Amino acid sequence: MGEFDLIARYFTRPTPNAALGVGDDCALLQPGPGMQLAISCDMLVEGRHFLSTVDPGKLGHKALAVNLSDLAACGAKPLAFTLALALERADEAWLAPFSRGLLALADLHGCELIGGDTTRGPLNICITVFGEVPAGQALLRSGARAGDDLYVSGTLGDARLALDVFRGTQSVPAAVFEQARARMEQPTPRVALGLALRGIAHAAIDVSDGLLGDLGHILDASGVGAVVDTSITINLIAACQDSTRVTALFDADTQLGYVLAGGDDYELVFTAPASKRDAVHAAAEQAQTPVTRIGHIEAQRGLRLVDAQGRPVSVQHLRSFDHFA
Amino acid sequence: MGEFDLIARYFTRPTPNAALGVGDDCALLQPGPGMQLAISCDMLVEGRHFLSTVDPGKLGHKALAVNLSDLAACGAKPLAFTLALALERADEAWLAPFSRGLLALADLHGCELIGGDTTRGPLNICITVFGEVPAGQALLRSGARAGDDLYVSGTLGDARLALDVFRGTQSVPAAVFEQARARMEQPTPRVALGLALRGIAHAAIDVSDGLLGDLGHILDASGVGAVVDTSITINLIAACQDSTRVTALFDADTQLGYVLAGGDDYELVFTAPASKRDAVHAAAEQAQTPVTRIGHIEAQRGLRLVDAQGRPVSVQHLRSFDHFA
Repeated sequence: MGEFDLIARYFTRPTPNAALGVGDDCALLQPGPGMQLAISCDMLVEGRHFLSTVDPGKLGHKALAVNLSDLAACGAKPLAFTLALALERADEAWLAPFSRGLLALADLHGCELIGGDTTRGPLNICITVFGEVPAGQALLRSGARAGDDLYVSGTLGDARLALDVFRGTQSVPAAVFEQARARMEQPTPRVALGLALRGIAHAAIDVSDGLLGDLGHILDASGVGAVVDTSITINLIAACQDSTRVTALFDADTQLGYVLAGGDDYELVFTAPASKRDAVHAAAEQAQTPVTRIGHIEAQRGLRLVDAQGRPVSVQHLRSFDHFA
Repeated sequence: MGEFDLIARYFTRPTPNAALGVGDDCALLQPGPGMQLAISCDMLVEGRHFLSTVDPGKLGHKALAVNLSDLAACGAKPLAFTLALALERADEAWLAPFSRGLLALADLHGCELIGGDTTRGPLNICITVFGEVPAGQALLRSGARAGDDLYVSGTLGDARLALDVFRGTQSVPAAVFEQARARMEQPTPRVALGLALRGIAHAAIDVSDGLLGDLGHILDASGVGAVVDTSITINLIAACQDSTRVTALFDADTQLGYVLAGGDDYELVFTAPASKRDAVHAAAEQAQTPVTRIGHIEAQRGLRLVDAQGRPVSVQHLRSFDHFA
C-alpha cells in the first residue's frame, strides 16, 4: 500500500464544514461571519504520550481528544483538523483501528479531517485542530479576577495512577486499574462544558501537565493568586471514590499527589465570578459534566494550598510535568 | 532549559496578524471578510526529508519553505503557522540556529508563529501553515482544461542531484554540488508567483515528489491529459545550465530523470489558457520568478512525453517519490 492509497483508504472522508478537504495542496476553511478560528496543535510520541502496547483505536481517540480538549478550554466549537503521521511502515492492522478510533471521536464532535501528511519515520502523531468561537468570546488563561471561584471538571489523577501501575511503581485492584486505564487511554474532551461556559467563566485551561502546573498558567497569565482547598481536591481521584472499599488505596500524600500533579487528565480548570455560581451549575448540567468548586482567586500572587480549616498545606515534592525538565 | 523556557526563548514573538498568538490553549485567527483560510501541513523526519548533518538554520528554513510552497500552489497569502517539534533534547546549539532560520523565512513572508507543541522524541518537525485567499479564487489541482498551456517555475532536479551526491551515487564538480545543495537545503517557496497567478492559472500544484507525479495529480483531479516536451524540460536542471562547461555532466536519460522525477523542488507546475500567455509572463515578471512553458493539456487522459518533433519519449524507469512504496 502506497502513501496515496493509505490516505484514500483510511483518511479521506466527506467534509461538509470545509470548502475543500483532503486532496489538494491546501484545505480551505471559512469561519462564519464574526467568528474567530481557534487553533491548537499537539504532537504525540511513543513512550512519552502513549505506551507502545496501547490499542491503536484508543490511540486514535486520544490523539484527537487531547486536541479537542484545547478547543474546549477556549470555548470553541470543533470544526476540522489536520493529521500528520509518521509510521515505521504502512501497517493496515494498525491503520484500520487507529483511523476508526480517531474518526469515531471526530464524528462525535462534528470535527472533519481536512488534510495532513504521511511519512515513514518513528511513530509520531501530530494533529492541528480548528474550532470557531465568536470574536471576543474565547475563554483565555488571562481572564481570572480576584474574588473568582475556582472550579475543575470531572476527576483528576487517574491517568497518572494507571501509568504508575504500567510502570510497576504502583499496585491497585484490577477493577480500579481498568477504570484508571480508561481515563489514561481514552480521555473525554470537555467540549460541551467549554461551550456552555462561554460568557460565564472568566478564565480556563485544560489539565494536561497536572492541576497545579496548569492552574499556575492561569495565575501567571492573569497576574493573580489562588487558594485551593486540598480537603476537596484530594477526593477528586475516581480510583478512591469507591465507598464500599474498606481500606484506603494510598496514603493521603500519594493520593493528593495524583490529583494535584498527575497530568494527562484533560479536565477543565476554570474561574468564574462568585455571582455566577448558579450559571456555572446550569452549564455543568447542560454539558452533563460534573464540576467541583475547589477554591478561589485572590489578588495576592502565588498558589496557596489549604486544608478544610484554611491552614496551609505543604506539597513541596509535587511538580508539574515538563517534557524537557 | 525546560519546555516553557524553550518556547519563550526561541518561539514566542509578536503576532500582529493573529488575534492571539503563542501562550494560551489555542491561538485565534480571523481571516478578513470574504476570505477563506488555506491550510496545509507537512511533517519532516530525519533521514527521510533531511540529513542528520544538515545545518539547523537551513533546516528551519526548509521546514517552513515546504509548507509555504503549498500556500503558493493555492495562491494563498501566508498569515501564520504552528510548529510542533519533537527533539531528543533541548539543545540550545541546535535550537538557536533552527529558530533563526525558521523565523527569518517567516518574517520574509509575514507569516507568524502562533502556536505549537514541543516534546521529547526522535527529531520530527511538523508545521501547519495558514494563508488567506478570496473565496473562490484558490488555485486548485482540479481546474486544468484541454487546451491549457502547461508551465513550470524555476529549475527542477537539482535537489535530487544533491541528495545523490550525498549518498555517493553521483559525482559532480564542487561548484555544481554547492549550487544543487542550496536547492535541496534551502528551497524558495514560490509565494509571489502563486499570488500573481490568481485569476490567470486554471490549476496549480507544487513539485515535491517529482514533476511527473505531481503533474499527475493535476491530471487526475481535472480529468484531463498532458503532453510534455522533454526537449524543453531536460534543460530545466540548473546543474546543466553552465554554458562554459565543455562536457555534459550526465547522459541525457539521467538528466531527464532528475528533472522529471527528482522531487524536493518546490517549484510550481500550473496550467493557464493559451489566451493568457501575456498575463502569465507579466505574473512571472511581477513575481521575479522565471517560468517555462513545457507543454499543454489535452482532453485525452494520460501523460505523454514527446521530443522536439512531437515523437513519443519513453521514460518507464521514472517514478515519483512515495513515502511507503
